[in-house]
Amino acid sequence: MTEVTDVNDVNGVNDVVGAMAPSQARVAVVGCGLMGTSVAMALQQAGCTVFLDDLHRAHQEAARQRSGGAVWAGEQVDLVVVATTPDAVVDAVLAAHESCPSAALTDVASVKAAIVEQVAAGPAGHRFVGGHPMAGSAASGPEHAQPDLFHGRPWILTPHAETDADAVAWATAAARWCGARVETLDPQRHDAVVARVSHAVQVLASAAAAGLLALDPAEAALSGPALREVTRVAASDAGMWRDILTANSGPVSAVLTELAASLSSVARLLETGDAAAVEAFLRSGNAGRRLVD
Amino acid sequence: MTEVTDVNDVNGVNDVVGAMAPSQARVAVVGCGLMGTSVAMALQQAGCTVFLDDLHRAHQEAARQRSGGAVWAGEQVDLVVVATTPDAVVDAVLAAHESCPSAALTDVASVKAAIVEQVAAGPAGHRFVGGHPMAGSAASGPEHAQPDLFHGRPWILTPHAETDADAVAWATAAARWCGARVETLDPQRHDAVVARVSHAVQVLASAAAAGLLALDPAEAALSGPALREVTRVAASDAGMWRDILTANSGPVSAVLTELAASLSSVARLLETGDAAAVEAFLRSGNAGRRLVD
Repeated sequence: MTEVTDVNDVNGVNDVVGAMAPSQARVAVVGCGLMGTSVAMALQQAGCTVFLDDLHRAHQEAARQRSGGAVWAGEQVDLVVVATTPDAVVDAVLAAHESCPSAALTDVASVKAAIVEQVAAGPAGHRFVGGHPMAGSAASGPEHAQPDLFHGRPWILTPHAETDADAVAWATAAARWCGARVETLDPQRHDAVVARVSHAVQVLASAAAAGLLALDPAEAALSGPALREVTRVAASDAGMWRDILTANSGPVSAVLTELAASLSSVARLLETGDAAAVEAFLRSGNAGRRLVD
Repeated sequence: MTEVTDVNDVNGVNDVVGAMAPSQARVAVVGCGLMGTSVAMALQQAGCTVFLDDLHRAHQEAARQRSGGAVWAGEQVDLVVVATTPDAVVDAVLAAHESCPSAALTDVASVKAAIVEQVAAGPAGHRFVGGHPMAGSAASGPEHAQPDLFHGRPWILTPHAETDADAVAWATAAARWCGARVETLDPQRHDAVVARVSHAVQVLASAAAAGLLALDPAEAALSGPALREVTRVAASDAGMWRDILTANSGPVSAVLTELAASLSSVARLLETGDAAAVEAFLRSGNAGRRLVD
């Protein structure tokens, strides 16, 4: 298993990052939805010069007004943060590299192995480090962006063997200027971990919420705080999550199959009246929960 | 399907309850854990005269100090609220009826059909109405009790065919004085509904949390807010939930089997790349979530 490693353990990056001044950094954000606009707002507040680009001009304009950044007209920058939808990331990275070959490149997509593999094989490979800020919102769009979205949150970087050290340094610096704590993971391991801590969790919440449709609406309203908490993310954008889940289909499917077996096993324990085994299951839940406390 | 019915629709109870003054009401609470002590604190604040009884003397003393109620020495009361562990409810109801035959009797256990059936068949049957306040906490014990625990929460009553109208009125009045909104359900339907909106939700949370044990602890710490929310109740007391789940084993097992099938089905859709069906599943989650918004 690949260990989670703080960036200060690899490549001597910390010294480089420590010497970087946000006031001298020029960053372009491509894709001005919730994530891109939040990054732009955070970096602008940190003192960076921020440029914005989105084919969806209303989003670009909203991001410009909210962040105070300028529309990107091809100015040379130090770092390009690609925050498009996941299926557009590879093309956007290649286009950014073509117009600005010296810039470091990163993205914020929540699935990494396929993107890293495709970019690493092409001309932009050595300038690219995959990124995934572990933050978000059930809402989407630039109007819901928040500059403090990343405060105290993990921001995972997935450098590959060919990534230039200064590209890792730029991505690390930007994440820290957004208030995040940077961790690095192998891209494949990243996808397995987020399948468990994020993607399968969305499916669990959706399954619990969908099950309520079997009830009379007045009965569903008899919910306690636990149901409200567990199903909150079931309100998330279905199209966005369809893309995330299908992009990480293998690891998510594996975790869902394991969780289904776990629920079936508890069902059987209840049918056979094995109270001790039910309690042991609940205690393993206690132990797992302590890992995120 | 049994409809959820507001108490104002049955037995003309509302007029009776409206005429009741908490300052003239005498209520005994048997069992001084989180729920009993919270009821005692809420009723004392509402102006009732509250008596307390718990074989666990430290709990009784803590509840006395927190609520300002008096130790119950057999004084005649209008209502006895039994808030013991579920397996002790029937005996506690029968004992309360023996010492105070005129009192209305209710309980706060989260599973109803078996308790109602046993009490209804005995001498206390006509004085008893099952109760289930839909509120709680991951913490337990009188030290975590809160007088506002029931504010705005549903409090389900499950009267049976032989229940005296004035017993329903007393239980209704006490729930309202605690700030709750009262709904009535058939006991069997209650158990099916809470299996879905509460008990199976606990198992889902525990399964998600237990799955984290497959990760390195540093990886599990890469969780977003969704995982924290979904697994929060996995910290709940394992012994208490073992008792709840086994007491409602049939309905819970049925819901868990259905949820397991739902997760397995999404796993298969991901394996076959059926993005449209994945999105349809997520949209049914959106629709179910709107029922608890």
